[in-house]
Amino acid sequence: MGREVDVTSTTNGAVAPHVRDDELDAMRRALHLAARGPAVDPNPRVGCVLLRDGTTIGEGWHAGAGTAHAEVVALADARARGHEVRGATAVVTLEPCAHTGRTGPCARALLDAGVARVVIAVADPNPGAAGGADVLRAAGVPVVTDVLADEGRAVLGAWLPAVRRGRPFVTLKTATTLDGRVAAADGSSRWITSPVARRHAHELRAEVDAIVVGTGTALRDDPSLTARTAAGDLAGHQPLRVVVGHRDVPPDARLRGPGGELVTVRTHDPAQVLAALEARGVRHALVEGGATLAAAFLRAGLVDEVHAYVAPVLLGSGPAAVADLGVTTIADAVRLEPVSVLPLGPDVLVVATPVREA
Amino acid sequence: MGREVDVTSTTNGAVAPHVRDDELDAMRRALHLAARGPAVDPNPRVGCVLLRDGTTIGEGWHAGAGTAHAEVVALADARARGHEVRGATAVVTLEPCAHTGRTGPCARALLDAGVARVVIAVADPNPGAAGGADVLRAAGVPVVTDVLADEGRAVLGAWLPAVRRGRPFVTLKTATTLDGRVAAADGSSRWITSPVARRHAHELRAEVDAIVVGTGTALRDDPSLTARTAAGDLAGHQPLRVVVGHRDVPPDARLRGPGGELVTVRTHDPAQVLAALEARGVRHALVEGGATLAAAFLRAGLVDEVHAYVAPVLLGSGPAAVADLGVTTIADAVRLEPVSVLPLGPDVLVVATPVREA
Ligand SMILES: NC(=O)c1ccc[n+]([C@@H]2O[C@H](COP(=O)([O-])OP(=O)(O)OC[C@H]3O[C@@H](n4cnc5c(N)ncnc54)[C@H](OP(=O)(O)O)[C@@H]3O)[C@@H](O)[C@H]2O)c1
Ligand SMILES: NC(=O)c1ccc[n+]([C@@H]2O[C@H](COP(=O)([O-])OP(=O)(O)OC[C@H]3O[C@@H](n4cnc5c(N)ncnc54)[C@H](OP(=O)(O)O)[C@@H]3O)[C@@H](O)[C@H]2O)c1
Repeated sequence: MGREVDVTSTTNGAVAPHVRDDELDAMRRALHLAARGPAVDPNPRVGCVLLRDGTTIGEGWHAGAGTAHAEVVALADARARGHEVRGATAVVTLEPCAHTGRTGPCARALLDAGVARVVIAVADPNPGAAGGADVLRAAGVPVVTDVLADEGRAVLGAWLPAVRRGRPFVTLKTATTLDGRVAAADGSSRWITSPVARRHAHELRAEVDAIVVGTGTALRDDPSLTARTAAGDLAGHQPLRVVVGHRDVPPDARLRGPGGELVTVRTHDPAQVLAALEARGVRHALVEGGATLAAAFLRAGLVDEVHAYVAPVLLGSGPAAVADLGVTTIADAVRLEPVSVLPLGPDVLVVATPVREA
Repeated sequence: MGREVDVTSTTNGAVAPHVRDDELDAMRRALHLAARGPAVDPNPRVGCVLLRDGTTIGEGWHAGAGTAHAEVVALADARARGHEVRGATAVVTLEPCAHTGRTGPCARALLDAGVARVVIAVADPNPGAAGGADVLRAAGVPVVTDVLADEGRAVLGAWLPAVRRGRPFVTLKTATTLDGRVAAADGSSRWITSPVARRHAHELRAEVDAIVVGTGTALRDDPSLTARTAAGDLAGHQPLRVVVGHRDVPPDARLRGPGGELVTVRTHDPAQVLAALEARGVRHALVEGGATLAAAFLRAGLVDEVHAYVAPVLLGSGPAAVADLGVTTIADAVRLEPVSVLPLGPDVLVVATPVREA
């Protein structure tokens, strides 16, 4: 590659021609459109802009599972506006699909429309599967990838790591005192964290597909596990409510009241839990406890991110956030890399990701 | 007081004439001078500027126990420079003392010198004792207090609350994982926190008069309890090393090696520990553990500030930071008010003060 600068690498490592300024602008617009898609959905948020001679002739975004893909929407938009799409450049936030899902493959649709060039932010994360870029290139269409890739990944959220891993992305949430307690000795825990922190936690619930707890928490706390608005009403989106373990959820449990669908998974194996959720299209699962379930997910290496709310409270006794991890000496501790530290009223939210050994 | 603005209240609640701009500037200079005093000392850091017709004629600060007070230094400085001090204004960061300590009372010295006006940042914190302001006023000298009082309190540090309380100011330090552990199950704890956080903790050690641990920590960890520089050398100031409990510190303990004086206090009563330290001129004591001693200080209501270093690590088992506090239900938890949240490398330092019931 020598002294070449201003180049954009393609997925196969070759050097692509420099992306044009109008294409960069179009990508920003496509990212903006992508973000109009539903935050919680089995499908990714994708935006697409069609350019001809630097002018936008069509736009589209994916509005969620069961609706048309962004590229198809943009092609239809251009045609509806009376534009010729042959020879246009497609600027799209995610590599066009090459497989036939509920809709036809988008790479095919772009080829059939005669698109002359394709600019992509994020490559297809499907491990192994050849993406649409190769299909397009094989048909002689130049493809530029990794354009504003960081922004592209951000708009995809948990969808990207989930598809890469072939299982839901797992966030483990804890809410503890400064001395690591989740409740007092008598089990009372309302409230350790402040209203500001609880509000924040409810916002996260509204952004995930599933909330997961063990039967211990379900039976002992009788939680609702709903996402609520600041006013205390049910949020528009309600995640699945997942209870893990062999015991039954009582008929009169709050978990059977208003809120997301109740899913019981009668296993102790976190991998089985995630497989069951993957089958239901879950991309982002929030494990909220208790200590036994949290430890099981950590031991299995199936926690991708920890959200630790820490309240300036000391209890001196009471249950801990995480049960035995089989760690006996400090060298074997589960180490995390902090992503952010956010004061929330009197509390602090530490977001961190487990450091995996190479 | 009606519509009066630009007034400065005096200690007795009356309204004093507006402080002049040159006096405000002189107070800033006096605060700057005060900060030249030793950070760790039984005596307060005080600065003094003498003004005549808006011009500085003398300056002084207190260089620590056994040396002259700031006012006396400033008077001597003015005379040495050939200035007449009669009729000057004394601008001083702390109310001049009225008692006779190792040096004579400063209020007397100012009167004898014929000072015509006194401007003070912080009033004498000695509970009950009439301060120098009253002595000066009784002699007909106008006194203005509370001028840049916040800045004045900041430069006094722990000295102010310690003198107010009649006992050392107590900082409780903890260093825990996100799940509240101070060590792994086998007792190993090197290292939970990062080098950045440990560096920070050593800086705090160099700013306190005493580090306090229980015999459990002394015997189990064989700590040095020294303040070290970034290079790992002993810092210039070494705090007293205080061990609380009935058991003996072994003859070969590191606590008997290079570092501050070793003080053993054979009691379980935190108030007795503080009385023993007060008698030695300690203004700021740092309780570093273990869990039993931390709980004893918290139960006695003798913790003024908590420094909680929290590392992004999970252990699932191991000793906790704080032993039983006699708290069984969440309503009785020790609640703290956060003062600051400081990311330190991967870790977070939460500084918080216990909320005392009215
Ligand atoms: N403040 C907080 O952050 C917070 C959040 C949640 C819970 N909590 C507290 O945590 C306490 C409950 O703790 P917990 O540990 O008993 O609850 P848990 O983890 O919710 O449930 C444990 C139960 O789940 C089942 N289970 C699922 N996977 C398992 C596995 N891999 N290994 C073993 N058992 C598994 C077992 O029940 P079966 O016999 O049914 O299989 C087990 O008894 C409650 O008191 C609650 O207040 C606090
Ligand atoms: N990472 C950290 O932040 C940190 C810091 C320090 C310690 N630690 C860990 O804490 C562990 C030691 O914990 P610990 O609780 O045994 O240590 P400790 O609090 O240092 O010492 C406890 C001992 O101090 C004496 N004592 C003093 N005041 C007392 C009181 N009010 N009530 C009862 N006893 C009192 C008793 O011994 P006598 O019989 O001699 O009177 C008692 O056994 C060590 O394993 C150490 O690693 C961790």
